[in-house]
Amino acid sequence: MNQPIPSSSPSGDLQLDSQGRLQHLLDIEGLNRSMILTILDATHSFISANNQEIKKVPLLAGKTVCNLFYEASTRTRTTFELAAKRLSADVLNINIGTSSTSKGESLLDTVRNLQAMQCDMFVVRHQESGAAHFLAEHVAPHVSVINGGDGCHAHPTQALLDMYTIRKHKPDFQQLKVAVVGDILHSRVARSQLHALRLLNTGEIRVIGPRTLLPTSLSSRGVKVYQDMDSGLRGVDVVIMLRLQEERMAGGLLPSRQEYFQLYGLTQERVKLAKADAIVMHPGPVNRGVEIESEVADGPQSVIMEQVTTGIAVRMAVMSIALANRQNRKLVLPGEVDA
Amino acid sequence: MNQPIPSSSPSGDLQLDSQGRLQHLLDIEGLNRSMILTILDATHSFISANNQEIKKVPLLAGKTVCNLFYEASTRTRTTFELAAKRLSADVLNINIGTSSTSKGESLLDTVRNLQAMQCDMFVVRHQESGAAHFLAEHVAPHVSVINGGDGCHAHPTQALLDMYTIRKHKPDFQQLKVAVVGDILHSRVARSQLHALRLLNTGEIRVIGPRTLLPTSLSSRGVKVYQDMDSGLRGVDVVIMLRLQEERMAGGLLPSRQEYFQLYGLTQERVKLAKADAIVMHPGPVNRGVEIESEVADGPQSVIMEQVTTGIAVRMAVMSIALANRQNRKLVLPGEVDA
Amino acid sequence: MNQPIPSSSPSGDLQLDSQGRLQHLLDIEGLNRSMILTILDATHSFISANNQEIKKVPLLAGKTVCNLFYEASTRTRTTFELAAKRLSADVLNINIGTSSTSKGESLLDTVRNLQAMQCDMFVVRHQESGAAHFLAEHVAPHVSVINGGDGCHAHPTQALLDMYTIRKHKPDFQQLKVAVVGDILHSRVARSQLHALRLLNTGEIRVIGPRTLLPTSLSSRGVKVYQDMDSGLRGVDVVIMLRLQEERMAGGLLPSRQEYFQLYGLTQERVKLAKADAIVMHPGPVNRGVEIESEVADGPQSVIMEQVTTGIAVRMAVMSIALANRQNRKLVLPGEVDA
Repeated sequence: MNQPIPSSSPSGDLQLDSQGRLQHLLDIEGLNRSMILTILDATHSFISANNQEIKKVPLLAGKTVCNLFYEASTRTRTTFELAAKRLSADVLNINIGTSSTSKGESLLDTVRNLQAMQCDMFVVRHQESGAAHFLAEHVAPHVSVINGGDGCHAHPTQALLDMYTIRKHKPDFQQLKVAVVGDILHSRVARSQLHALRLLNTGEIRVIGPRTLLPTSLSSRGVKVYQDMDSGLRGVDVVIMLRLQEERMAGGLLPSRQEYFQLYGLTQERVKLAKADAIVMHPGPVNRGVEIESEVADGPQSVIMEQVTTGIAVRMAVMSIALANRQNRKLVLPGEVDA
Repeated sequence: MNQPIPSSSPSGDLQLDSQGRLQHLLDIEGLNRSMILTILDATHSFISANNQEIKKVPLLAGKTVCNLFYEASTRTRTTFELAAKRLSADVLNINIGTSSTSKGESLLDTVRNLQAMQCDMFVVRHQESGAAHFLAEHVAPHVSVINGGDGCHAHPTQALLDMYTIRKHKPDFQQLKVAVVGDILHSRVARSQLHALRLLNTGEIRVIGPRTLLPTSLSSRGVKVYQDMDSGLRGVDVVIMLRLQEERMAGGLLPSRQEYFQLYGLTQERVKLAKADAIVMHPGPVNRGVEIESEVADGPQSVIMEQVTTGIAVRMAVMSIALANRQNRKLVLPGEVDA
Repeated sequence: MNQPIPSSSPSGDLQLDSQGRLQHLLDIEGLNRSMILTILDATHSFISANNQEIKKVPLLAGKTVCNLFYEASTRTRTTFELAAKRLSADVLNINIGTSSTSKGESLLDTVRNLQAMQCDMFVVRHQESGAAHFLAEHVAPHVSVINGGDGCHAHPTQALLDMYTIRKHKPDFQQLKVAVVGDILHSRVARSQLHALRLLNTGEIRVIGPRTLLPTSLSSRGVKVYQDMDSGLRGVDVVIMLRLQEERMAGGLLPSRQEYFQLYGLTQERVKLAKADAIVMHPGPVNRGVEIESEVADGPQSVIMEQVTTGIAVRMAVMSIALANRQNRKLVLPGEVDA
């Protein structure tokens, strides 16, 4: 759990079929550059579709998508729910925390049952790293699994929407300096972002955070590690703030909110250390005055709301690509003509 | 909060665009008579549509309606949910009480995020008076806000469905004596009803309740105030009972349930004081034996179930009118022909 | 409540119209053999439909189905929700346990209100035996009621899906020996299964369980009663395990989990006592290691997952048949041609 970037994982095999097509989305690791670009391009089609008068496309009509959330998350669940509904799927929300009968039941039994009810796709969020992989190993051949966040491991749709947002503003990743700020060690968001930034050949990747929250393995993998916020921000094109998980502070790994803000809070002053046209990102929900100042979160360099909008489109893209591959259907994206 | 009918409010400006068309529905105050009649006429079209074999119309197809409920209310939320679904919208229910991530988040941050997810309409219920206005001030130009009840302030869709119900049975408001009975002071329902009754030029408006629960400003505004139930009911055409909010009794503002029923409970005996063809209304859910006797609630003069049915149609009317105006689309009501 | 199989009940009258057509599904008792076969045949059409690329059929388009659950049950609620959505109905989920305003309200008031909102069908689960009958007595003429489980009384859709599953594997009921194992006395599932097995002229019906949990009336009604698991299983074609309701153990009616498993747990050894091609059934969710061993639940003779799949189809069949009859519409099943 505390090895945020293991050097190898079996997820590549599981995610891709023998022709290298996406079957499940479990982790950025195991994907290649061209697959990421394919997803970002498809995301673009869905962003256009979402700007239409009628935001629905029939790509998943008659399919059932099950949101299986073992960790409460209104925000992420909502984006997957809206993405599925805009693809015309039927959506089933199962919140295990509040659900009675499933409580004593194992993850696998729950999924086998929902699969027997002919669910076509599971979006799973789970406190255990590896939960999504585990499901992908066990689902039926026509069922696809999307990782909505597992433990400290991965949050691939978040990383993909972040890459789309960066590319829109700064298309040439090789020229970019990108800094990720916060609790890198425990963040599944950071872990997936770092993988994606590397696959896209980002010029320089930096992480900034307290020494206790920086994995030691990072520097050997080409990531520049900063404990000092000001040094780390200097000259970057993109600042990605992580959400502070307050429960970490109880364990003594983090200083108080005030102290954290003083050391790593993104203020207007600090933004000036980055390039003049740098963009500021955050996965949300924002803890105003803890990891970021309101003036920055709502300021002209913030693209936080854009990230939210992209979040719907990237999930529509991933869901329709994975399920079309998995069920061997041809996918015609919005705006494309079926030849 | 305790001034149920302030003499002026800025809501008119916010609710209407420069051509006087409805953009948001926040409060009956600020609307004019002709707009209320327009909504009641549209409600009539939707009541006919709801009697069809297939109750769905495609007026909000491809649109997303978000029910944002900061106060628990299965009943009201259900009517908005059904109204939106029968308009073919996608519906997102967010119950802030039970939602985790949104808990620490401000109302505005929650709405900004949902708006970034391309929600087209917010139905908001909130314990704070003015919450819906606040949202309407801050949403994007294509997004419409409907007030589903805010603090002690307003509950405009309830008032509109009540006016529809009265008009159906007693079309000439100028000839009517209407009594509203209960905790007038704290009731957003009463406040919106009184505004609507005045706009429709109701012949005589009475309020009946304990002295502590009657706003002093009312008599100066042409409303007849009664502390004695029997005198107040005498000769009226319409009796509107309010729901007793039991939490008020803890504060000593109200007598016990038994005492309240004795003083202000609507019994079969008391109904006889009203006109022989008077109708009895209640916004529901009914506290049987507290504010109203079962024999009256279920009796021949009760139109309580009609109110519920009208509640769906009036919400369909308001939602489709406001969103069409807000998004500059022509609205063709069910049964109309697009010329 | 403790008379699982009363010799007569008025439900037949209520369930069928004057021409003997199904209006509500409340109980297997009161149905006849031909009606059960009609439902099983319709179930077959829906199983085929659910295997299509697009699983939706428009049989309930524009209709509103309300799941009214007074007992928490994610599993059963989910199957009714999916069944209704695949019939293209709008679905309203009301969980009374978590719903605020409905709490103080009577079942009848809740239903009257939902009916006034033009719900067409109620699926009701309630801790009181007879709740579904009560509703069926009071709903409007165009509204249909499906019993999703009431107290210790009946769970007819479960029994129907079980009969479908048995018939698929062992079509000739007259040749079959079927054993139902567990807490027969308190089980609404068992009660409905026994009625259905009798209506289908099952060759031999056995129940197996601790003496305290076996209704004394059974043997006089042609059911063979066994307290010894091994004797009861010998030579049967079908083993139906019941879910152990752990709350019963608190009352001293049941031994500990370990002891129960030793006496009545279905192990691989015990399965060998049944016929070599016997099938093993369980309504789910399975308590592994309590009423059944994992190796049996997941083994080659288990048809438990098939039961789940059938559960969706049988509910689609019952909902579309009952509502078509109730609303006097001709029903054209998937795959049939409207002549």
